Amino acid sequence: MSRIAYVNGQYVPFASALVHVEDRGYQLADGVYEVIAVWEGLPVDLGPHLRRLGRSLAELRLESPVVERALCVILRSLVERNYIRQGILYVQVSRGVARREHTFPPPVVRSTLVVTAHSRALMSESLFEKGVSVITMHDLRWQRCDIKSITLLPNVLSRQAAHERGAFEAWLLASDGTITEGTASTAWIVTNRGQVITRPLSHALLDGVTRGRVLALASRLGLEVVERPFTLEEAKQAAEAFLTSTTTFVLPIVALDGRQIKDGRPGAVTHRLRTAYLSAVTSGAASW
Amino acid sequence: MSRIAYVNGQYVPFASALVHVEDRGYQLADGVYEVIAVWEGLPVDLGPHLRRLGRSLAELRLESPVVERALCVILRSLVERNYIRQGILYVQVSRGVARREHTFPPPVVRSTLVVTAHSRALMSESLFEKGVSVITMHDLRWQRCDIKSITLLPNVLSRQAAHERGAFEAWLLASDGTITEGTASTAWIVTNRGQVITRPLSHALLDGVTRGRVLALASRLGLEVVERPFTLEEAKQAAEAFLTSTTTFVLPIVALDGRQIKDGRPGAVTHRLRTAYLSAVTSGAASW
Repeated sequence: MSRIAYVNGQYVPFASALVHVEDRGYQLADGVYEVIAVWEGLPVDLGPHLRRLGRSLAELRLESPVVERALCVILRSLVERNYIRQGILYVQVSRGVARREHTFPPPVVRSTLVVTAHSRALMSESLFEKGVSVITMHDLRWQRCDIKSITLLPNVLSRQAAHERGAFEAWLLASDGTITEGTASTAWIVTNRGQVITRPLSHALLDGVTRGRVLALASRLGLEVVERPFTLEEAKQAAEAFLTSTTTFVLPIVALDGRQIKDGRPGAVTHRLRTAYLSAVTSGAASW
Repeated sequence: MSRIAYVNGQYVPFASALVHVEDRGYQLADGVYEVIAVWEGLPVDLGPHLRRLGRSLAELRLESPVVERALCVILRSLVERNYIRQGILYVQVSRGVARREHTFPPPVVRSTLVVTAHSRALMSESLFEKGVSVITMHDLRWQRCDIKSITLLPNVLSRQAAHERGAFEAWLLASDGTITEGTASTAWIVTNRGQVITRPLSHALLDGVTRGRVLALASRLGLEVVERPFTLEEAKQAAEAFLTSTTTFVLPIVALDGRQIKDGRPGAVTHRLRTAYLSAVTSGAASW
């Protein structure tokens, strides 16, 4: 349980971490967020997360109430105050408290900044060893999924549907039959020729921080990497499939829509990438 | 200024109307809402609003924390405690406070109910007499706009773009060139043959309460009403255009994307519908 949170300039007991009901994050989903993994008390890929937060804010013309340096102090302080060794930092910025109108409030209204920290086991060896199953769902989301906004209801509904069908994640299908991404993860396949494939960046998907790191690691390992859209049919025929995210790192997928991927066991390429990722995290990717 | 709000079973001073930062409405846009007009201290079309709220909740498998009868008591109490003669009631239900996960929380987590009431002038005679201008924007929203959810960021961005271009509202264009609806209103045109046209209900638009009432009034007035999608081109050539919503009632549109509709003045059919709507509101549509 998280003991201390940060809300608008104050460190408060978690139970007292409150915002006003007319916060635009609450009534209009007018805000953005980041989730940052904490490993051995240090943040993983802090720089890329802060850069992405900056981009999300800029796309929505949202002002951060604090400069990046101050935000780093807050993040570090929450990790320390909550004794987090392994877990997550959650950062949310919304467009402040104002009379409910769709149009932006006057500039005098300051954005709301909320930061929480939670202890959580990030790596599940058993999940990794068995692999997970994924289902596919029609991608219902809005057309700017490159912005890490809090408009997550469609993700919630798809993830819940996956959960009820015994799956770990839902991959989201565009109307052209290609997979955009998971509800909270990036989608990857490995072809029978050994190509590692993931969708190129566009408005249809998030620029995943783990995605970026795994792309770089794959190249360093000498793997052939191709950024292109792939279809559900291709995924079903793939040699391997996996997902990446801030909290699951690299996770093998062994079944898709109830059908085994190959022999239904985590693949060798996925294993190499996960090992490389873990090694990067434990040797420098985590630092203030 | 609203003085008393209702949050989870308690009437509280508006400034103390707070929710926890891990309310799923705040982090995941996992909630629904209604806005109900208050006229002479009475709610307009309360029944249809409560039925729509019930449908939104059911679509998201969200439980209301109170039965409808209790909600009516709360609504009425807020109108009285805040001395609202003309204004709005705002009701929001979200899926409660829980550790942030996309999947639904366990059933023990109770939904959050927030109700606020604000005095506000609903009818602007000057807006009505001059009419308003509208621009068009690509419809970026998710694919379940029939659910009145709080995933309103795309609406916020489009409405703000309209505002910055001196327009009152943005009409949202589907990829096939038809208009779905406004960011917070239903879109209508009147053809040169006098047909009143609005889009039929589907997942692409909200079942507007004012829309439903205006449809019925139009038929009663002997107007020919056709529910079918219409294109931007048709709207530009229309004899009249107008929008309907809970807070603006029936509002004439006199310019679309910077071009006058006909002679740039509110049309006769729009005038008749607005008059009929006002007469309905002042003679019984508003009641507990």
